Amino acid sequence: MFFLWLNLAGTIVFAASGAAAAVAKRLDLFGVVVVGVVTALGGGVFRDVVIGRIPPLAFTDWRYPTAAAVTAALVFWVHAQVFRLRRTMLTLDAAGLALFTVVGTTAALEAGVPWLGSCVIGTITGVGGGVLRDVLTAQIPAVLQREIYAVASMSGATVIVLANYFSLGTIWTSLAAAALVFGLRLLSSWRNWSAPVPKTPKI
Amino acid sequence: MFFLWLNLAGTIVFAASGAAAAVAKRLDLFGVVVVGVVTALGGGVFRDVVIGRIPPLAFTDWRYPTAAAVTAALVFWVHAQVFRLRRTMLTLDAAGLALFTVVGTTAALEAGVPWLGSCVIGTITGVGGGVLRDVLTAQIPAVLQREIYAVASMSGATVIVLANYFSLGTIWTSLAAAALVFGLRLLSSWRNWSAPVPKTPKI
Amino acid sequence: MFFLWLNLAGTIVFAASGAAAAVAKRLDLFGVVVVGVVTALGGGVFRDVVIGRIPPLAFTDWRYPTAAAVTAALVFWVHAQVFRLRRTMLTLDAAGLALFTVVGTTAALEAGVPWLGSCVIGTITGVGGGVLRDVLTAQIPAVLQREIYAVASMSGATVIVLANYFSLGTIWTSLAAAALVFGLRLLSSWRNWSAPVPKTPKI
Repeated sequence: MFFLWLNLAGTIVFAASGAAAAVAKRLDLFGVVVVGVVTALGGGVFRDVVIGRIPPLAFTDWRYPTAAAVTAALVFWVHAQVFRLRRTMLTLDAAGLALFTVVGTTAALEAGVPWLGSCVIGTITGVGGGVLRDVLTAQIPAVLQREIYAVASMSGATVIVLANYFSLGTIWTSLAAAALVFGLRLLSSWRNWSAPVPKTPKI
Repeated sequence: MFFLWLNLAGTIVFAASGAAAAVAKRLDLFGVVVVGVVTALGGGVFRDVVIGRIPPLAFTDWRYPTAAAVTAALVFWVHAQVFRLRRTMLTLDAAGLALFTVVGTTAALEAGVPWLGSCVIGTITGVGGGVLRDVLTAQIPAVLQREIYAVASMSGATVIVLANYFSLGTIWTSLAAAALVFGLRLLSSWRNWSAPVPKTPKI
Repeated sequence: MFFLWLNLAGTIVFAASGAAAAVAKRLDLFGVVVVGVVTALGGGVFRDVVIGRIPPLAFTDWRYPTAAAVTAALVFWVHAQVFRLRRTMLTLDAAGLALFTVVGTTAALEAGVPWLGSCVIGTITGVGGGVLRDVLTAQIPAVLQREIYAVASMSGATVIVLANYFSLGTIWTSLAAAALVFGLRLLSSWRNWSAPVPKTPKI
């Protein structure tokens, strides 16, 4: 139940982020819905395929595609307001990253994947939708540029793995991990933190 | 048997469409064959992975990769004529979309995926190859822009699901669904139908 | 054991190639690591998913992601030297292609995939990481352009399949197949071999 809600909440905020990117590229209504749905469901489908949960949750539970499609369509109709609320979007995106990282890492651990693999799967679940969004709209994925995005996700995954190792995994450690991802992501963007960049840009 | 032929026919027309796109990008012979094969097999591999048909049909039945590679090579050699036959290409592409949507939705239903998930899987099967083609040739996928492409596919998937729900699924309903996709796709492109586009292109 | 080492060696050289491409695009440290890891593990994850080895090796054996991440980070710190060593990079990349093709084809045959499908899976395993690298950095994949890349990989896969068919599959045939891929790839790039290109670039 708890994870269902985390998962649905993540689906909705990622659908909104994908739809907003598609609107900015001037795609039509259906293009916006497609990008929104792919952004929202992509990470989870990958997670389910590699942990052997076949068919993936996104195809067996009608609530995921429905929530994603409805959210994307809403963003299409109200996009002017959405764009004015850039900060809101950033916040929602950070929330989605946090929720999907926690859900993905936990699902991988439960499926018996070892700890490092679970971290990697959790990070891909969190980051994957955004990568698909950027590839579909022909941009270099944001996760690869300047901002501490994958690192925030990986920190949260590590918390989940540690809690699991010490048999401390509860709703509270999940929430703490999500809060860590959320906080790191927002802090890094407010303070303009960024990782080192190569010094001599040859080639 | 019937689905084998639908599937092979779809494979061939999508291979031709991928190869034509690669020729237009001036790729060499092997690049053209690779894009053609990926376009033809991509949607089906995704479908088989998410419904648990492992290894995917494209790798267990030699006819699929062979048909795709031979078709792509033929397009390479005769591309001048192919380009003169733009309308033929559009028609073939619509046929591929129709065939793969029907095959994909039916396969998902048979694998026990619920109705909405089966629609989504059928649509991805129909649309997926073209998306891979466009990503490989560094373009924003056609399905995301201006033309009613995903919607045509989704309508056909819905017909299959409804027929299945009322236990009416036969070869005839499959053909009707395929005809619907095919007709909608061609009509929308002849009449220049398109979905609404955002009015105020802020960013 | 033997295949473990082939696989790890391939992982390391592909991680280096992905990281170098990311450095050339001026990504930051984490972007470089992400591209390196995806390039190194992508082909193998695809291979494992389609042959039903779930969860994929890359997530169950901590050595693969660790080797990939460490290699990518090293390339980030020493990239100036790496770029001066262009020829070394080309050689390493050819070695990765050779190793992954052999490992991928063998794994598919062992999983009971028929011969043509095994060739295709082996080729995708060899070539896949590089395609992901190029898609992530928003370029048309190198494998699609001018150089005989996929063909070298496919020749090696064919050797493995033939050896298996005649029950001659040993470490030695694996090494011979790898040497063939490696040699063809390097020869084609030294001699500037390339496949035919379309003559009349209409459109």
